[in-house]
Formats: sequence, structure tokens, C-alpha cells
Amino acid sequence: MATGRGSDRLNVVGVENRAAPGPFLIVCEHASNHFPPGFGTLGLSDADRQAHIAWDPGALGVARRLARNLDAPLVHARVSRLIYDLNRPPSSTGAMAKRSEDYDIPGNHDLTPAEHWRRTEGIYLPFHTTLHGEIARRLAAGNPPVIVTIHSFTPVWFGTPRDVEFGIIHDADPTFARAVLAEAKARTGLDCRLNEPYSAADEVTHTLRLHATPYDLPHAMLELRNDLVADPVAETAMADGLAPVLSAALAAIRNDQTEGASA
Amino acid sequence: MATGRGSDRLNVVGVENRAAPGPFLIVCEHASNHFPPGFGTLGLSDADRQAHIAWDPGALGVARRLARNLDAPLVHARVSRLIYDLNRPPSSTGAMAKRSEDYDIPGNHDLTPAEHWRRTEGIYLPFHTTLHGEIARRLAAGNPPVIVTIHSFTPVWFGTPRDVEFGIIHDADPTFARAVLAEAKARTGLDCRLNEPYSAADEVTHTLRLHATPYDLPHAMLELRNDLVADPVAETAMADGLAPVLSAALAAIRNDQTEGASA
Repeated sequence: MATGRGSDRLNVVGVENRAAPGPFLIVCEHASNHFPPGFGTLGLSDADRQAHIAWDPGALGVARRLARNLDAPLVHARVSRLIYDLNRPPSSTGAMAKRSEDYDIPGNHDLTPAEHWRRTEGIYLPFHTTLHGEIARRLAAGNPPVIVTIHSFTPVWFGTPRDVEFGIIHDADPTFARAVLAEAKARTGLDCRLNEPYSAADEVTHTLRLHATPYDLPHAMLELRNDLVADPVAETAMADGLAPVLSAALAAIRNDQTEGASA
Repeated sequence: MATGRGSDRLNVVGVENRAAPGPFLIVCEHASNHFPPGFGTLGLSDADRQAHIAWDPGALGVARRLARNLDAPLVHARVSRLIYDLNRPPSSTGAMAKRSEDYDIPGNHDLTPAEHWRRTEGIYLPFHTTLHGEIARRLAAGNPPVIVTIHSFTPVWFGTPRDVEFGIIHDADPTFARAVLAEAKARTGLDCRLNEPYSAADEVTHTLRLHATPYDLPHAMLELRNDLVADPVAETAMADGLAPVLSAALAAIRNDQTEGASA
């Protein structure tokens, strides 16, 4: 998409299956733990840069397979969330976090205004400009997409195990997320919960607020416990299980709308 | 702003006072009745292209003077709303209206998908990408702007005179708009009304939905009856009257927040 590419000098955003005509558009903001040369390592060890604080392990694999199964475009990040967390606005302390869980991020302390703007202009704006362009393309074509963002979360948070396996989170409109919850409970053996382990109140729905809510697009943020998507075989199995859940959820809300319209 | 400029091949967006540090950011989506050569005249006469259907007469003059008085950046369109109405999403029939009031727009009938996308990619995306970049710059600098969009409306609509002189319209959060209404009633002799002659339900708050609401930015859309801003002298007088209204409204909501925080 020309509009996004022109400003993506750091190659921070990837778009796959651009012309795919299926009803969904898949987004993966925390797909990568890549640290481009211009940003150094933020003072982190190799092990820290492999850990869940740097990215959402398994999320890109699930997102790619979902995009294939659902014939959907995929927009994903190529840069670690520790350099810029693309699901946070530039005004958020979480955009360039000084701490993440119990990890200190030395390279994010004492950021100058110039460095704050360099990351905003170089990472945040190209990613969201590209995503906006892909959504606008679909809106212009009369084929408004359902926005699905793919995330993973750590099974142990500050020492406490988490029981939830599959969280479905929504921004302003809960309709599609509730339908996904119902279909996931019916079709999978996962422990599925609405607005867990996070919710919009935790500031985790920025991408949806920016791109789905202003256009009244059905949307959901999917959070998978990362021990369930720990290798390519598990990622594929998860995506193959979730694709029919998403399709059934969309069919369900469209049926409801049709019945409402004819009533 | 590099992100916006790179894709603005048609020169559809103007930015003035970019570095101005005042608390407001002024937007004027319907500033121009320019028809770039690549789009022809849409089959309209010279007179039709001067009429209020093609732009908001007086709005740019007011917006420029307000930006000067308030030390604010101004983002304005350089293309007629009849080619693309920048306050409408690409999915809206109003983005490239076939009719406006009682005027027929021949050049907007039977648009091909390619032409729909050409205007979306060439006009809608560069304008909103540039505006997004200016807002992100302010957010990154810790100086989140109040978004004020400037519009004008025709005094006679389908033959019926309108009494309202100054309409203040909001998207999701009414706080700032209500404060503007109170200050305008106290400080001007204008017939001031909230959410008239249009409201968010009429699909007129797209710019605010896209740029103010996702960042929780205070915002208002100001609608001036165009017979009150019919020449440069009147535009200047109106802006000089409105600037202290906006400043007082902002002071009022900030005082309320401070009191709320200390209570």
C-alpha cells in the first residue's frame, strides 16, 4: 500500500495476503522480537530479548495460519514491543516501557523528546498508517473487514499461574467478542473468558479504538496463553481450531442483524 | 510532517503553524472549493463550484485567524468536498455525494471501484495520515491537543431559514463542547446551540471519531452560519470573538478536572 510504504523506512510493518477477499483482517502488533540496529539492545541480554516481555511468542504463527485459513490480509509488526508497543498511544508510559513485569528496561529510561519522537515517527506512525490504508481499501471496495488482533500472554504473571487459556477482549462494541466466546466454548476445550486476562480498561485496545471503533467494524482482540502455542505444530493446531470459531461467530452476528432487520 | 507529505502527491492537505505550542489544533476539512485538474469539474457549472455545496465558505478564514490568535497548528484541505468529503469514511455514500441539498453532482454518479479507490488513496488517506502525524507529534511531546474543527453552514436549507448562528457539536465526550456553549452564550451575542444544525447521529463527526476520541482528546466541531463569515472582515471579527471563548472553555474544563482530582 503506497501510503504506508512510503514512510516505512525502517521496514517495521509487514503485510501479507493483501488482496485476500475474506471477511476478516488480522493484525499482530507484538509479532516480533526484532531489535533493529539503530535501536541497540536497550541494555537487555539475549535471554531477555527472547522472553515474553519483548514480543508475544506464538502470536505470529497463529496469525499467519489464521490469515491463510480465513483468506484474510495480515498486518504485523517487525519490531519488538519494547522499542515501541504498537498497541499503545504515544502518550502512554507503556509505549516505551521502563519496566515490564519484573524486568527493568534500561534503554527506555530517561528518553529524550527527540528519541520519543524518533520511535513514534519511525515505528508507530508507519504501522498504523499502513493498517489504516488496508482498512480504507476494504471500506472503499464495499467490503468492510472484521478486525481481529492476535496476542499471547504468559502463563505465569508475577509468580501467579493463570487459569485462563483463551481471552477475548473488545473495545466499545462487545457484539462480535461475545459471539466468539460462545462459539469457542461450544467448539473448543479451552478455558475461554471475556475480557481476561486484560480488558479495555487496561489500555490494551488501542489498535481497536483507532481502527475498528471509528468505522463501527466488528472486532475482537484474541489472547492465547503462550504455553499453548509454544511451537509451530501447536500454533497450527490452535489456528485450525480458531478459524471455524471466528467464522461461526461472524455468521451468528450477521444472522442476528438479518433477523433484526426483518423483524 | 514526513509521514503525511510522502503520500500527498496531489497536495490535498495544508499544514500551517506546525510548531505552534498552544493547546489547540485546528482542522478545516471543507476549506477549499478547488477542483484539481485530474478530477475535472464533476459536470458542475462555475456557479455551482462556488456554492456552499462545494466547500464551507468562510471556514478557512476563520480557522486561520483562530490558529494565529490561539498559537495553534492548522490542518486544512485543498480539495473540494464534492471530490472527497474528508469528514466522511470511504464507506459512506456522502464521501463522494451524488446529490447535495438540491444539486445533482453528475461526476459522482456511476463511480467505478477504481475511481472510488483513487480518491480514497489520493485524498482521504493523505489528509488523515497528515493529521494523525501532527496529533502524534503532540502526544509524543507530552502536549496533547484539543481538537477543534471549523465548519460553516448555509443559512437556508431546502428553502427553510435556519435560526441557529453557532452550532457546537461533539463526538463521544460532550465535556469541552458544553463548556464552549456556556462561554459562547456568556461572551457573544450569537444564537448558540449544542448539536445543531447537525449532530454525531448525522455522521458529521468522522474526523473527531478518528482522531480525538481514540486518544481521549477534548474536542468540538464548530459550525458557523456562513452569512456571518461572508467576507474577510467578518471572518476576522468572528475568530477574534471565538478565540477567547475557546480559551475560557478550556480553562473551565481544566479547573473542573483539578477540582475533581483534589476532591
